Amino acid sequence: MVDGAKKKLILDLDTGIDDALALAYALGSEEFELIGITATYGNVLVETGVRNDLALLELFGRPDVPVFAGVEHARAKDSFEVLEISAFIHGRNGIGEVEVAEPKATVQTKSAVDFLIESVATYGEDLVIVPTGAMTNIAAAMEKDPSFAANAHIVFMGGALTVPGNVSPWAEANINQDPEAADMMVRGCADITMIGLDVTLQTLLTYEETKKWRALGTKAGAFLADATDYYIKAYDTTAPHLGGCGLHDPLAVGVAVDPSLVQLLPINLKVDTEGATRGRTIGDETRLNDPVKNAKVATGVDVERFLKEFMARVGKVAAGANVSA
Amino acid sequence: MVDGAKKKLILDLDTGIDDALALAYALGSEEFELIGITATYGNVLVETGVRNDLALLELFGRPDVPVFAGVEHARAKDSFEVLEISAFIHGRNGIGEVEVAEPKATVQTKSAVDFLIESVATYGEDLVIVPTGAMTNIAAAMEKDPSFAANAHIVFMGGALTVPGNVSPWAEANINQDPEAADMMVRGCADITMIGLDVTLQTLLTYEETKKWRALGTKAGAFLADATDYYIKAYDTTAPHLGGCGLHDPLAVGVAVDPSLVQLLPINLKVDTEGATRGRTIGDETRLNDPVKNAKVATGVDVERFLKEFMARVGKVAAGANVSA
Repeated sequence: MVDGAKKKLILDLDTGIDDALALAYALGSEEFELIGITATYGNVLVETGVRNDLALLELFGRPDVPVFAGVEHARAKDSFEVLEISAFIHGRNGIGEVEVAEPKATVQTKSAVDFLIESVATYGEDLVIVPTGAMTNIAAAMEKDPSFAANAHIVFMGGALTVPGNVSPWAEANINQDPEAADMMVRGCADITMIGLDVTLQTLLTYEETKKWRALGTKAGAFLADATDYYIKAYDTTAPHLGGCGLHDPLAVGVAVDPSLVQLLPINLKVDTEGATRGRTIGDETRLNDPVKNAKVATGVDVERFLKEFMARVGKVAAGANVSA
Repeated sequence: MVDGAKKKLILDLDTGIDDALALAYALGSEEFELIGITATYGNVLVETGVRNDLALLELFGRPDVPVFAGVEHARAKDSFEVLEISAFIHGRNGIGEVEVAEPKATVQTKSAVDFLIESVATYGEDLVIVPTGAMTNIAAAMEKDPSFAANAHIVFMGGALTVPGNVSPWAEANINQDPEAADMMVRGCADITMIGLDVTLQTLLTYEETKKWRALGTKAGAFLADATDYYIKAYDTTAPHLGGCGLHDPLAVGVAVDPSLVQLLPINLKVDTEGATRGRTIGDETRLNDPVKNAKVATGVDVERFLKEFMARVGKVAAGANVSA
């Protein structure tokens, strides 16, 4: 790391309520500088994600953070439509039908893929990329620049290794959007950390916590409380056994900032792209005995400590404090 | 444990070449007393397994160990036939077409299920049961005696959590024989350790090791070498990427004797009994946040130390030494 320089972060978001929480977590983390958001699809279209990212950056007091539009659909498809279940969980507008003022800033002309490639070339070890939606931008960067895979450090939200999936008994939603891209990423990149349903369904938020944001009397606090309540309500329907909503994307940012929050299993991963279990994340049996493991999967999480960090960091943004630049 | 008494072991085998190696490992382990073998099906019919167990106990110098016949088929079926792939891997006779003299001892009149129940009632904490085939006997014991599940300590070979299965991309062979029984066991028993393909495909044996047994010039050594060579040869065809045969069942015995050989992930498990992934072992999402975990899954193994223990313990039996009573 350059002396005195903060580590850098890029969020690759499909914003999305828990993406919004992940953004707040990143902005509330003083150890890292958020140098940009790249927009992918999944919970929303790329177009909607870009709009939400710009609007939330302004709401959170950081309109200076640049937003880059990414690839609009999966490698194996020629278009993308938001699934009904995604709209049910995140609302049609992606942020729980909560209205946020139109942003003044506009999307960058540079593509998300070029920004990812240039940032890895510039910052190397000092940069962590956190994809929380379809991994299509990452795969495109790998393809466009052969040096990307060897030098990028990636902590992604997605997959399910020791628990069932959430869009099928074997597939998690982000992987399911573009299994080919996810497979390229988990096989090909040199440093991959998977934050899957194994751990994100252990980190639950309830109405008790969102009340605290609302009580702050700020615009940011009201937004975070209202959007998250929408998300918790959807979970009450889709996964009533949990008793709260999973903090999927924020946990990936949490681990990017502090890997000691989770227990990590070194492994060589693959994504099933064919057959009945298309979209499943699983160990690659052909590399089981390869002593070099390019991935780590979180199999356990310090729930109490993460929730404390989450409330402290997101709380700063909710309070409307000047968040770190 | 009763002062000065050894811990007790029951092997629930479908013998099978790696079951024969597991038996030798158990007999070569002085910390434990093998109090009986219960026969299940899988690699072979129960009838063939009983015959092999009796013959091998005699060959290994321990004809005093009693053998009990178990349930002959899966809970959801009314008969069992050996799969072609099992016959290919283990030979028609289960022990690599190697001839072993007819045993003098005969099978016990008591059933395997009753022996399991009575042994758990008698020895409690001091007994470990190691199932290495279909788990039908265990499920039958749970059903017949409601106190069995709470008091039995089970280290089983089977399942695949972080790697694909070996009879399908999601199902491991032992689980696949009787998914309902396996599901009952992993959900219902209070103390379950799973030694699955995750680790057993890391512990590989090659012709280099079997040569050492043959060089001993004993009947036991010749048998172990010839049968294991048959098994390695089958692996050369079915899983050439491995470069050896997986020491599935011996590793389960190894962990029963010394749990520090593996890294264990605490988890609440289930077996898929319906849908496309019937036979899959996976975390039970409805118990993900239950702080009480009734199972542990081995996710890593100290390969070098296990192979050293394996060669030392099986070597004693191969040498025709007086093995521990």
